[in-house]
Amino acid sequence: MIKVFAPATVANVGCGYDVLGFALEGYGDTMEVNLRNDEVLKIISIDGAVGIPLAADENVATVAIKSLLKTADLTAGFDIKISKNIAAGSGLGSSASSSAAAVYAVNELLGRPFEKHELIAFAMEGERVASGAAHADNVAPSLLGGFTIVRDYHPLDVINIPYPEDLLAVILYPQVTIKTSDAKRIVKQQIKLSEAISQWGNVAGLVAGLIMKDHALIGRSLKDEIIEPVRSMLIPKYDEVKRHCMDAGALGFNISGSGPSMFALTNDKSVANRILTGVPALYEQEGIELFKFVSAINSLGTISI
Amino acid sequence: MIKVFAPATVANVGCGYDVLGFALEGYGDTMEVNLRNDEVLKIISIDGAVGIPLAADENVATVAIKSLLKTADLTAGFDIKISKNIAAGSGLGSSASSSAAAVYAVNELLGRPFEKHELIAFAMEGERVASGAAHADNVAPSLLGGFTIVRDYHPLDVINIPYPEDLLAVILYPQVTIKTSDAKRIVKQQIKLSEAISQWGNVAGLVAGLIMKDHALIGRSLKDEIIEPVRSMLIPKYDEVKRHCMDAGALGFNISGSGPSMFALTNDKSVANRILTGVPALYEQEGIELFKFVSAINSLGTISI
Repeated sequence: MIKVFAPATVANVGCGYDVLGFALEGYGDTMEVNLRNDEVLKIISIDGAVGIPLAADENVATVAIKSLLKTADLTAGFDIKISKNIAAGSGLGSSASSSAAAVYAVNELLGRPFEKHELIAFAMEGERVASGAAHADNVAPSLLGGFTIVRDYHPLDVINIPYPEDLLAVILYPQVTIKTSDAKRIVKQQIKLSEAISQWGNVAGLVAGLIMKDHALIGRSLKDEIIEPVRSMLIPKYDEVKRHCMDAGALGFNISGSGPSMFALTNDKSVANRILTGVPALYEQEGIELFKFVSAINSLGTISI
Repeated sequence: MIKVFAPATVANVGCGYDVLGFALEGYGDTMEVNLRNDEVLKIISIDGAVGIPLAADENVATVAIKSLLKTADLTAGFDIKISKNIAAGSGLGSSASSSAAAVYAVNELLGRPFEKHELIAFAMEGERVASGAAHADNVAPSLLGGFTIVRDYHPLDVINIPYPEDLLAVILYPQVTIKTSDAKRIVKQQIKLSEAISQWGNVAGLVAGLIMKDHALIGRSLKDEIIEPVRSMLIPKYDEVKRHCMDAGALGFNISGSGPSMFALTNDKSVANRILTGVPALYEQEGIELFKFVSAINSLGTISI
């Protein structure tokens, strides 16, 4: 038996659409996995969430485990208890945390046939069943921790980069539902070269700022001129929330994944507190509940607990 | 009187179109500048090049100097002797070297009213007269040295990043003429979002590889799926030269600026020698002369000599 924790994650990180991501501390899914003496993959229970499929071909955890077993050419059965802390549809990598936890747990129970970074490909199969695309920008940081670059998929090339240890992410999750299909459809598939150049200039700046621990550069680079302008329209009060966070002194602000969660980066606890105190009022008048917390960057990724 | 050296530069660096650049060692323009006791900007001589305008409103050096004087709200006159080592139209930042040398020299003669990084904006005015666009991707590395990111223009934000000290650039310049207008027209102004994502994934990888001194990552990231496929068509034997360099063990290969010069990166002198020995044969049969050299990365940028 093993019990593991896989952190929630912020994908895209402004300019790094489909490429950058980072892991959050103290917020994520826990999973208990027991080896069975047959070949059945059984979800025993899912706490903290409703409507998640239990069938082994539909649940992201069991789909990811199947992918691992197939590559390892092993047969094994597991009982799985999931405790979800991350709501599906939050934009905080809910399905990725379940996939990451599952493959990490099974890899440990099987005597570690794979290195941690090799587990990303299996967890991606969970993402495929969750969203239709086997993307890695949430599973990579959830497994590895820290900030990750998904540079390429053919073959998969994920890079962990250093970052300033004092960085804090303020997570703001207004409890509204955004259909993934809407969030996808709204993104233009053709863009201007000039916009793309701005974007990779900012990606260059953001990666340099993180590794060189230059907070001001991180802030200046945390922009997205391509996706944010359209996706932010699906998030109530986005512009007001962003303005509040930047006025409060945040280094930068953007959408987490495809939303509705948003994140502000800062290295100043008093800035984080000003954001936590000020933003709820913006949603109260709308009758929208706001889930909010401050997190350091999680450096460990998925771990046994 | 002052004599200065401004290095040749490689702009774009594969994926970093219009954003990344680096400076070359031992190859560039030298310039001798004398303060006059009137307000005349006079190009006395230009060695090593023909067809470069001498008129103060047309020569990049004097245009850049005028921009500096205007911002400093100063009047002064200078005699200028230019010794050009970088051919115009080579793709090695010829006009940028002249602009960089000119503003550096004048700033020194005037008692350094500006910091070195502030000179970039003035040198960009030289680029405007040379190419119609005040771009910074050659003048920034020529002035500052090393690898530079031009993150933004409004306001100008140039970042110098660390890089592996053992990096060598093999420069291959087949003596053919590419019209700048052709090189520009051939670049598509609308691109697929999916191509742009690949590109900024590679930019993230290249910047991380440089700062983290990860040679293999630099090599994997030195790709350009957007500009190289079209611009390489204007460079004779491009695919064969690239194949030769990669087979010889280069980390990566791409077009320097808008060509026709190409560069290969390596940290192995024997790889550089294999390239220098092997490539000329590819052009001999075409009757095209090849100018070639190996250069370390220039860390100083423009200097007094």
